[in-house]
This record gives sequence, structure tokens and C-alpha cells, in this order.
Amino acid sequence: MARTAPDRTVIPPGFLDRMAARFGPALALGEAVRAQHGASESHYPVVLPDAVLFAATTTDVADCVRLCAAAGVPIVAYGAGTSIEGNATPIRGGISLDLTGMDAVVAVNPEDFDCIVQPGVRREALNQHLRDTGLFFPIDPGANATLGGMAATRASGTNAVRYGTMKDAVLGLEVVTPQGEVIRTARRARKSAAGYDLTRLYVGSEGTLGIITELTLRLHPIPEVISSAVCGFATLRGAVDTVVQAIQSGVPLARVEILDAMQIRAVNIWSKLALAELPTLFFEFHGSAAHVAEQVETVKALANANGGGAFDWSNQPEQRSRLWRARHEAYYAAVNLRAGAVGWATDVCVPLSRLAECITETRRDLDLSPIPATILGHVGDGNFHVVFSIDPDSAQELAEVEAINARLVERALAMDGTSTGEHGIGLGKQHWLEAELGGAVEVMRRVKRALDPHNVFNPGKIFTF
Amino acid sequence: MARTAPDRTVIPPGFLDRMAARFGPALALGEAVRAQHGASESHYPVVLPDAVLFAATTTDVADCVRLCAAAGVPIVAYGAGTSIEGNATPIRGGISLDLTGMDAVVAVNPEDFDCIVQPGVRREALNQHLRDTGLFFPIDPGANATLGGMAATRASGTNAVRYGTMKDAVLGLEVVTPQGEVIRTARRARKSAAGYDLTRLYVGSEGTLGIITELTLRLHPIPEVISSAVCGFATLRGAVDTVVQAIQSGVPLARVEILDAMQIRAVNIWSKLALAELPTLFFEFHGSAAHVAEQVETVKALANANGGGAFDWSNQPEQRSRLWRARHEAYYAAVNLRAGAVGWATDVCVPLSRLAECITETRRDLDLSPIPATILGHVGDGNFHVVFSIDPDSAQELAEVEAINARLVERALAMDGTSTGEHGIGLGKQHWLEAELGGAVEVMRRVKRALDPHNVFNPGKIFTF
Repeated sequence: MARTAPDRTVIPPGFLDRMAARFGPALALGEAVRAQHGASESHYPVVLPDAVLFAATTTDVADCVRLCAAAGVPIVAYGAGTSIEGNATPIRGGISLDLTGMDAVVAVNPEDFDCIVQPGVRREALNQHLRDTGLFFPIDPGANATLGGMAATRASGTNAVRYGTMKDAVLGLEVVTPQGEVIRTARRARKSAAGYDLTRLYVGSEGTLGIITELTLRLHPIPEVISSAVCGFATLRGAVDTVVQAIQSGVPLARVEILDAMQIRAVNIWSKLALAELPTLFFEFHGSAAHVAEQVETVKALANANGGGAFDWSNQPEQRSRLWRARHEAYYAAVNLRAGAVGWATDVCVPLSRLAECITETRRDLDLSPIPATILGHVGDGNFHVVFSIDPDSAQELAEVEAINARLVERALAMDGTSTGEHGIGLGKQHWLEAELGGAVEVMRRVKRALDPHNVFNPGKIFTF
Repeated sequence: MARTAPDRTVIPPGFLDRMAARFGPALALGEAVRAQHGASESHYPVVLPDAVLFAATTTDVADCVRLCAAAGVPIVAYGAGTSIEGNATPIRGGISLDLTGMDAVVAVNPEDFDCIVQPGVRREALNQHLRDTGLFFPIDPGANATLGGMAATRASGTNAVRYGTMKDAVLGLEVVTPQGEVIRTARRARKSAAGYDLTRLYVGSEGTLGIITELTLRLHPIPEVISSAVCGFATLRGAVDTVVQAIQSGVPLARVEILDAMQIRAVNIWSKLALAELPTLFFEFHGSAAHVAEQVETVKALANANGGGAFDWSNQPEQRSRLWRARHEAYYAAVNLRAGAVGWATDVCVPLSRLAECITETRRDLDLSPIPATILGHVGDGNFHVVFSIDPDSAQELAEVEAINARLVERALAMDGTSTGEHGIGLGKQHWLEAELGGAVEVMRRVKRALDPHNVFNPGKIFTF
């Protein structure tokens, strides 16, 4: 499936010996660990790295980079391995640089609403660590990803509508450059106009420009009241209109997720719920008790006027957790629609005014295929996913899904949208990057050539040259 | 004052004739218009460009860039001329590219909460244009700047605490590269993970990487209720603690500005107010009637517990406007403290936990000098300004202010802050960029050399090489 030819890099004689001499048992050569690091959560073929280095310190990373750069050996940073578009697959071999051992929360500064973490910290572990501070870290892709990986892919999740994406969450980064330098992109001030915004250049660069070895992250106060609700709609358009009107009314929606009827069916089976099989919104409201009550009143009235049914409430933490766990497991629920199937996921993002149309046309296209597929998305951002449940042994199904995905991406681009709202380009979306951004891609290549002239970092990702 | 030697570029013979042949009367060679474009709002010496081009279209910009690049003539983009750090001063001569004629609002998309504007649109004109849509554009530096200039300097203003800075406000840009290509950095989706974040690379690049010819901007719904209040505090620490605790309590402060006692004195004189001469917070609250009332209750209680006085209310639009006009004219008020004086402004930004200490130490330093100087700032961001009112003919005063400014910047850096929160590096902050960001500056230079190899765009700004 990789559109980039996997022209494996030839490892120079003695290179792995030099690595072993420097890193000892932290360098793993066994087939099992290499296979694990060559696999991905998604449908991309496994490509083994030549070795896996378990880095423990920034110095480890810098030394690895210098050894690899000198030998022309690729380095692919590796976190939780939960990226969707083959972003961490070492398609040209080389070193898979596993950063999960760098998992310390270095500092929490409650009065500054920030913290400093190593890249291997996972988002759930960070929130667990923060639980006594009254603060939380909001960004939540479905998987329990590492924060380094989330920054590298510019991840977002269910509450981006209120709290933004990783580009908003990262205040600054420590990065190892392909020259082995260790740089800091910003001080700890909440804003700065000092020079180029390297922070946001590295966020979303998918490990192609530098290796993130530390992150300074913005935190938010845990709201006094958190309230969730589920509401089914007669039409998809009614659900989307409700969200647009709520934003127009100044309701600071914390989360607003759409699940189409088939996704609701999948969730009902997987998470043992009994929701009506309709286009459905999952809401979450944050604020004081009075403010949440007022937000709910406003949204209920809008939903009612747009063909929404009764609100099903979850004010208790356990009920809320159950609901949002169901949402976060929606991918597995969708895959599970078919016995023995594997998942194939994609995402696009369009201007809000085109979202209902884009989802409706996509659903129509999906319904022409016998392959089960669900739609779910972050309505407030105009971002949605399609999850296919495919037979892993059927080349014909793979080809059919690829064709549907191509039509989806082209539909989103025709609506002035993007080929990916939050998964990144990786391998899977390279085909459309030029169509989406034209000459800007050549500017990206100039940046890549300037910062990584020997193409050491995650070669073949985002674009080739 | 320019720390970069003004080594003027030699204009090749025939170059201005070629420009005149292409642009006719849009190319201005007169001394008065050149002097106007060589001056700045601040204390930097006037440096005349060789000519001023009044661009009317993106094609004009691209043609100008190609002619200048071929001849090695510098191009400095020019908007309202309100930048503070000499950002638009053509220190090496060449063409001042005036974009104020490109002032069309190209499209407003209310359901998408965005609009498309040309770079010469000023922020007040945009909000005037939007007034019937129920939406507004929040970013408000003191001056009525152009949106292109605001993007180029990564400007912010009084409500960044709630609505962010230009990095958050810009969804995408049309940019002319030094090669004369016209690129678009992003589609109109509210978020994207497609490739490098060129949008935010150009935002804050101060015209050194490309010329912005169109901007897609995020808009926000005008809140149902806007309420302002003024509150004096016995101590600066009490004012800052009130703000930190309000954020911790989840109060979504829309604006929170601090003015020190001397700035209040200046404002009282200039804007005919009668505020107590104390460290004072100007608040603004946005939301529904009930939510604003609740926010005010919370903040009043916190202010009271932190040594704040009574809240002076301005719920009527005229009173509110008067109050915020006074805040926006604070710079002129400060300069006016002394007859015949000119202004000299600087800004730094520190983590919130260090803000009270940083302002207090700075005030102590200012009080050792006879030169009048005020402090005002955006407390929620940890960002503050010092405005000096100096005798334009006194080299000794200039030297004294430069020394105080140097101590201020070094104080901010020692607190893990930045040398500029919103004015940019321009000429004035270059001396500290390496101290602030170390090896990251070399990475910035690599980006500059890759994208503008002949150093055509605003040479000598941010850094030299």
C-alpha cells in the first residue's frame, strides 16, 4: 500500500557494531522487537527496521543521530505506535528510535498552567499525574498515544473545538536536529514574537525535521462541572445545524461528536449501549453549575428546533466515563462489525458549512459497497473519520476501500477542505498533498532539504524528493 | 540605534526604469513618500527606501519580487507603519512595498466563522465590515494596524488571553515567495495535519520569508453581553494573584490589562478620567447575561481577597468604549507625560508566576531614572510593556533608556521569558535573540537561507548572517 517505493537503505559495515558499542543492551536486534516497531495500528504492511534503539536520555538521542547521520542510516522516531497513516513505519529500514522509555513528567507549574514532559509520556499518564493539581491536558486522540507522537503528527481529538490541537497545546520543544544539536524552540512564556515559530514547524512534521526530546505543554483548569448528553437526530443536517447555531450563540462546547447510524449500531454492540440507530451527537459541557445548565438549555432548544430527540443525560462521572469510553472505542467497535476483520481508517476536514453535505455524500458512497463502514467525527471542527471493517486477505476489498478513500479526499478538497484533519500525511495521503497545497509543497521540500540535507529523519514520509 | 550596519544596497543601473515601465505611477520616487515609508512609529532613525511601490494586486507583488530578485534589490513590505521595533524600516534601501491599497474584504463566511481579506485591510475596518454578521475579529494591537502587518509580526493585544494571537487567528495565507511564486499555505478547513505548518512559519517572520497577499482569518461570535470593570489594588502582587486565581477558577476572562500607578496618572490626564493612582486592572467579560454576572461575582470576590478596591463598572457601550479607548491610547498618554517628548516602547513576556516579580523589579529600576516611564500589560499572558517618554534630542537619555531596556530583557530571560511577547525582533531585540533561543537561531537561519537564498526580503531583520 505504501506509495513510496521501499528502497531500503544499505547499512554500512560496522555501523551496528558502533551502535552496540555505544548503547549496549538498549540496542535491540531481535526479530520480534523489530517486527513490533515495523507494524502499525493500521493496514500498512510491516517493514522491519534494522535495529531498535530504546533511548533513555536526550544524549542518547543526539548520539544516535550523529552515528546515523554519519553513516546515512535513517532514523524513525517511535512512540506508542498508534498513528494511522503509516507515519512511523520505517519504510527505508534503519533505526526505529523508541522514545517510550523517556517517560518522565519533568515539571508541573500550576501557577503558569504548564508542564514539561519527556516525549514518551502518554496522555492518560499525564492526566493521572496531574489529578491533584486541578489542571488537565485536554488533547485526546482515540489512542493512549505518547505526547511526542501527538506533537509530531499534530494530533487533536474530541475537545479540539474548545481547547485546540497540539499546535495550540505545545508552548515549546526540545529537539535534536539531524546535525545532532539539541535546541529549544521557545522559552516558557505563554506567547512570544521572537523569531520564526519553530515550535509549530516541528509540530506536525512527523519526525522528518527533528526528534522531539522534551515538550512544554499548556494545561487547563478542570471545570467545576462536566456534563455529557447524547441526542439522536432525524437528519444529519439537523445535527450539524445544531452545532453551528450553538457556536454562533456563544456556547463554548467542550466536546461535540457525531456518530452516524451505523457507528451507533457498532457502539451499541461493542459497549453494550441501547442508543437509537440515528445520526447522533455526543455533547460535553464544561463550566460552573449555572453556566453548564444555561449551555444545556440553549443547546436543547436548538436541537429541538433541528429535529433532535430527547437528551439522554450522563451527569454522574461513571455514566460519563462509560459514554466517552464508548466514543473512544468507536474504532474497535466499528472494526468489530464483522468477524475476523481489520480496521482501515481515514480522516478529512472541511469548512463547517460543507460538513453535512460532505458526510451525506460520503455515506451514500459507502452504502454502495458491501464493506461495513462507519462515520464519526468532530463536528465543531468540520473533521470526520471513516472506519472500514475489511477482510485482511482480500486484495479486492483493499482496492475498493482505496477507491472510496480517494473519492472522499477529492470530495473534501473540492469543498476547500484538507486531506487530513488530524492523522497526518504519513504514507497514505501523499498522493493528494500537491493537489491540496500546490506550490506550497515545494516550499516544504526546501525546508526539509535545509534542515535535514541528508534525509536522515523518517525519509519518504509526507513527500518524497 | 539600528544594531545592523545600514549597508545600503547599490541599485543596479536601469532597475528603477524597469520598475517604472512595469508599474507606471504606482512607483513613487518622491522624497516625501519615501521619507514617510522610511520612518516608524518608534525611535528608530529614518532610512529612505529607493522607491515605494503601491501594489494593487498579487500579480503586482509577484512581478515586483521577480524584478527585485533578479537585480538583488531588497523588498520591505509596508502596511500601516505602526510596528514598534523598526520591523518595516528599509535599512538597506531598496523597495518599500506598500500593501495598503490591497484592502478588500474578499469574502465573509459566517457559517464557517472565517473571512478572507487582503493584507492592507485594517483591523477596525474589518470589524466595521463584519458588524451585521454577528461576528468579530478579536486581535487588537494598540494601533489600527493592517492585518498583513499583524500577521507578519505575530501581533496580539488585549484579548489574547481569551482569543489567542495572530498565530491562532490565521487559518491560511497566500504568500509570494522570493522566487515570485504565489502559494497557499492551507485550505479553509479549521484544522489540518497536512504537511509542515507553513502558515505559522510565515506568521511572525516579519516579511523575511515571503510577502503575504491574502489572509484567511478565524472569526468569533459577538458575545451577547460585554461588561467592563476597573479595579485598583493596594499591591501589584494582589492584582496579578487575582488574575491567576480567576483563570484557575475557570473564568474565561476576555480582557485583563494592568496599568501601573504612573500609567493611570497618564491616562487620567490624556483621557480625562479620575481613577485612583494605583496598580489597576481593566477587565472585560464576555458571555450571556447570567454567565457574565457569575464571572463578575467570582472575580470581585477574588479581587476583594487580594486587596482590590471597589469595581468601577462600565456596562453601557459608551462608557465601555471610553474606557477601552483610554487603554488603547495609553501609549500616547504615556508619551504625553512630558511636553515635547517622543515615545520609546518595549515589551517582554514571562511565565505568569514571575510576572509580579518582573514588573516590581522593573518599576524599581524605572524609578531610579528621571525619565518618565509607565508599565502596562496583558496580565493573562504574562506580557507587559514599558513606555518611556524621552527627549528626542538627548543622546544621554537614549543611552539610559537602552540600558534600562537591556536590564528588562535580561530580567525576563532570567525568568524563562521572552525578549518580546508581541512586537517582534525587528532591529531592537536582535541583540538578545541568541541569548534567548541559542542554537535554534541557527535553525532559523537555515530556513531563511533555504527560502530566501539571496536575502531579498527585509534583509537585516530578526538576525543577520
